[in-house]
Amino acid sequence: MSKKTKHFYYDNVSERIVNVIPLGGLEQIGMNITAFEYGNSIVVVDCGLAFPSDDMLGVDLVVPDVTYLQQNADRVKGIFITHGHEDHIGAIPYVLKQLNVPVYATRLTMAIIEGKLEEHDMLLDVDRRVVTYGDVVQAGDFSIEFIRANHSIADSCMLAITSPAGTIVHTGDFKVDYTPVFGAIADLQRLGELGKQGVLALLSDSTNAIRDGFTPSERMVADTLDTVFSDYPSSRVLIATFASNVDRVQQIINSAIKVGRKVAIEGRSMVSIVELAKNLGYLQIPDNALIDIEELNSYPDDRTVIIMTGSQGEAMAALSRVASGQHRRISVTSNDVVIFSSSPIPGNEKSVSKLINELSMRGARIINKATHVSGHACKEELKLIYALTKPKYAVPLHGEYRHRMANAEIAREMQVAKENVFMLNSGDVLSLSSESGEVTGEVQHGGIMVDGLGIGDVGNIVLRDRQNLSQNGIIVVAMTLNKNTGELLAGPDIVSRGFVYVRESENLMDEAKAVALEAIEIALEDGYCDWGRIKSEIREELGGYFWRTMKRSPVVLPIIMEVDV
Amino acid sequence: MSKKTKHFYYDNVSERIVNVIPLGGLEQIGMNITAFEYGNSIVVVDCGLAFPSDDMLGVDLVVPDVTYLQQNADRVKGIFITHGHEDHIGAIPYVLKQLNVPVYATRLTMAIIEGKLEEHDMLLDVDRRVVTYGDVVQAGDFSIEFIRANHSIADSCMLAITSPAGTIVHTGDFKVDYTPVFGAIADLQRLGELGKQGVLALLSDSTNAIRDGFTPSERMVADTLDTVFSDYPSSRVLIATFASNVDRVQQIINSAIKVGRKVAIEGRSMVSIVELAKNLGYLQIPDNALIDIEELNSYPDDRTVIIMTGSQGEAMAALSRVASGQHRRISVTSNDVVIFSSSPIPGNEKSVSKLINELSMRGARIINKATHVSGHACKEELKLIYALTKPKYAVPLHGEYRHRMANAEIAREMQVAKENVFMLNSGDVLSLSSESGEVTGEVQHGGIMVDGLGIGDVGNIVLRDRQNLSQNGIIVVAMTLNKNTGELLAGPDIVSRGFVYVRESENLMDEAKAVALEAIEIALEDGYCDWGRIKSEIREELGGYFWRTMKRSPVVLPIIMEVDV
Repeated sequence: MSKKTKHFYYDNVSERIVNVIPLGGLEQIGMNITAFEYGNSIVVVDCGLAFPSDDMLGVDLVVPDVTYLQQNADRVKGIFITHGHEDHIGAIPYVLKQLNVPVYATRLTMAIIEGKLEEHDMLLDVDRRVVTYGDVVQAGDFSIEFIRANHSIADSCMLAITSPAGTIVHTGDFKVDYTPVFGAIADLQRLGELGKQGVLALLSDSTNAIRDGFTPSERMVADTLDTVFSDYPSSRVLIATFASNVDRVQQIINSAIKVGRKVAIEGRSMVSIVELAKNLGYLQIPDNALIDIEELNSYPDDRTVIIMTGSQGEAMAALSRVASGQHRRISVTSNDVVIFSSSPIPGNEKSVSKLINELSMRGARIINKATHVSGHACKEELKLIYALTKPKYAVPLHGEYRHRMANAEIAREMQVAKENVFMLNSGDVLSLSSESGEVTGEVQHGGIMVDGLGIGDVGNIVLRDRQNLSQNGIIVVAMTLNKNTGELLAGPDIVSRGFVYVRESENLMDEAKAVALEAIEIALEDGYCDWGRIKSEIREELGGYFWRTMKRSPVVLPIIMEVDV
Repeated sequence: MSKKTKHFYYDNVSERIVNVIPLGGLEQIGMNITAFEYGNSIVVVDCGLAFPSDDMLGVDLVVPDVTYLQQNADRVKGIFITHGHEDHIGAIPYVLKQLNVPVYATRLTMAIIEGKLEEHDMLLDVDRRVVTYGDVVQAGDFSIEFIRANHSIADSCMLAITSPAGTIVHTGDFKVDYTPVFGAIADLQRLGELGKQGVLALLSDSTNAIRDGFTPSERMVADTLDTVFSDYPSSRVLIATFASNVDRVQQIINSAIKVGRKVAIEGRSMVSIVELAKNLGYLQIPDNALIDIEELNSYPDDRTVIIMTGSQGEAMAALSRVASGQHRRISVTSNDVVIFSSSPIPGNEKSVSKLINELSMRGARIINKATHVSGHACKEELKLIYALTKPKYAVPLHGEYRHRMANAEIAREMQVAKENVFMLNSGDVLSLSSESGEVTGEVQHGGIMVDGLGIGDVGNIVLRDRQNLSQNGIIVVAMTLNKNTGELLAGPDIVSRGFVYVRESENLMDEAKAVALEAIEIALEDGYCDWGRIKSEIREELGGYFWRTMKRSPVVLPIIMEVDV
């Protein structure tokens, strides 16, 4: 810790301090995880992964560095989860391998977590505690209350995190939906009650903070769906949406049943979430409403609806396979209507366009308007939460910098004192008391890249190599030298990958070989056999040659073998 | 040509046929080029490049395959350019190297083309003919008339391409602007006149065909700019826009002058276009309105405006360098307002977001609303052009499939017979006469990838290798064998790039070496020395090893050297 860190052990009644330590989630979308620390107790909220950015070539996902929690393992009382999206739960198996503490979550959220733990063969090792709205968990010096929220996945929570320093409200991801499809309105009353009693800090979702007004109710989607079904009575209907949006799936099924269509579910994650949600009672599906994808062809087009994954243009998802003609059971015709019940996540715009073009070419009618609503609060909803809780301090969470800045402006508009609105960075230790709030230190933090089974074995050097390889390819220059005399016994042989189509570039490769040979001879001429010298000579000469002749910079990799003859 | 191709030499008065042959521009955005063929004459409209798609790793740009034009070089009368954007002129130097024919363009367009030819050291070799609105060029059996259009670059044209088969109107990229900043309204009267006389076919811009209504006038931007200047009287203002949008630059300069600010121009392409446009009279700039970027610090913030490149988040452009703190002369403070006078081009959304975040972190206020209008016609403008020209045939151009489909629907709404609306593919030969229209053949076509100085030497195999290398890296396994006995003299040595950080994975590399050695020994055991066998054994065994232990698939490249001892 570089700055003056206040001691959280301090237990003077006049200055009870709670530390808020986001370990991720502030520099990019995803990887949400925040620690709260009071005296000898630490509680953690959420444990999400991030998807790799474009420059993380070959990386599958990114998980948070929890060194700080490991170092203080004896003080960590548990991980409290707000909802079941990847950016809030996806790192649980990775983190629990380093820090086995109890996990608290509502029922659907826990069921999704259990699926992940099973994949990692960890189900039996983890202390899982299912909670319900209104439950208050005692965890060391903290008590954590689960409060009903609305979001694009059922069973989402806000948390009231109370310590002797006061109560901190953490919204998780949320919106305010007065007419939710499943369950009830977010518990605004409880937020008001907490506000009346005094809220120390509000940590809130900034994702839509740059948008004016209110996010529409999930229920609005039903009207649009009904309209589409009545506009295209004789077409088959395919609908792509997020697998985890159980409420959306419910609405599609409701609309389908109204017009007497059967529903087939397609895509691995969609099938598994629907199964899960149905078993747990989060989906109400009459008998015979669902049909198996195999039965699809036994029904006429105008009697079926297919709900599927792939709304983001993900290459291997169901809809992409359908669009490219590679799906075994579904082929698109001009009698199909394809509904995108989703918005493209930033960065996916081009893949989604590609998908729409491919489906259009097969004759499908595409509908991608007004069949989706966001799961995140817009400006007016955020104002409502500030009005209910009237926090002393505000910390915008979840979102890029510009989103969090917009949330910070709302906080100031809502009478949070300017100096009490904190734009934090991951790793910051924000020390809050009824007297004062300030950043008092910094702990280790960062993203750890996961590639296949390797966790953290891909770093910046590997990524830089992949970047070079991807743009320019590689030239391997191999040779064998006499160990004793340094004489060149074989080579240099030149092999390339990702550089040029070799069969059509024989002259070029011959010239390159001559350049390499000359470089070796010059290096050997000095009489002593310095491999480093030979390698750097080759890299320099060949690099220069390719740049001069082709304006390209392949990775040049010299390999020297020596034989003792 | 696979299908029945009608002979265009045919000169029976009862069936005069013109062939329309798009050689690019229909499968992706960019690379616009269309040939028109009548009797012994061919004319070409536009000659654009495409920017590489995400999977074309390391490729700089894509140019059209003009084999068909080369094969008929003696019949090609010239290339006629609609306007000076890269997707309409960028391939000119590449194509003219294969086919030296005259190029016709308006003044600003030609000046931009000349810049490109100069870069390729071709200026003296090319027959350049500057035309003006209303000019009609005779070219074999064709006459080509240049008609005034509105677009986001000055001097844009539509073309009326007349042959004995009739008149084809090609809109180029266009919008209808009743109050343009520079010049006049698109020549709607001439389109009406041509329509009265009879238009055989309309080839039109589909880019915005999915959007309702009209694209607003360029002039609208001025009001927003004035508002921003009056809202932030004491701030410095940075404005990023497209260098080629000379009218936008004019408006920014006008607004700046009104409030007594000096204007600095930054970014290589912005500086060069402003210089060019000023010299040619396309920009009206009073003396002393411009200042050099070096002088910027001699003026207070509230007296300056900087117009710059980089509105798309391009890594090396001026604004990106400013945002990342790497610009030598401009550093952003909280007294800066940054205006994005642009929309993100699809695929650039994430880079633009990143830029906004970086600028926000430096305290800048970001404005990216209502300071941009599109240069392309929306639905109602397209209807207007159909109403004026009343073509017998319609061919939607420019745009992804879904955009062209939307244009096709407009054509049908506007009374073009369903069977006379053609959704073409690149290479299609569309034969049109007053009697009938049909696709009668196909010619060679495609995109040729340019990487550095190499044209067409990167193909699918190279791209697939780059893709593999970028995701998984490479493992080189080198060994030296006795040429006569097949005995292993040295190695196997294992070297990797882009795979794992080797210093922290020594065990893994040792094991991999053992796996490779075993594979070699098994292959050699058979007693005869089959290099192919050894290599495939290594690839298989090592590939399997890395997949089992790490779930990764690096490129495995065995290299065998032989020594005659």
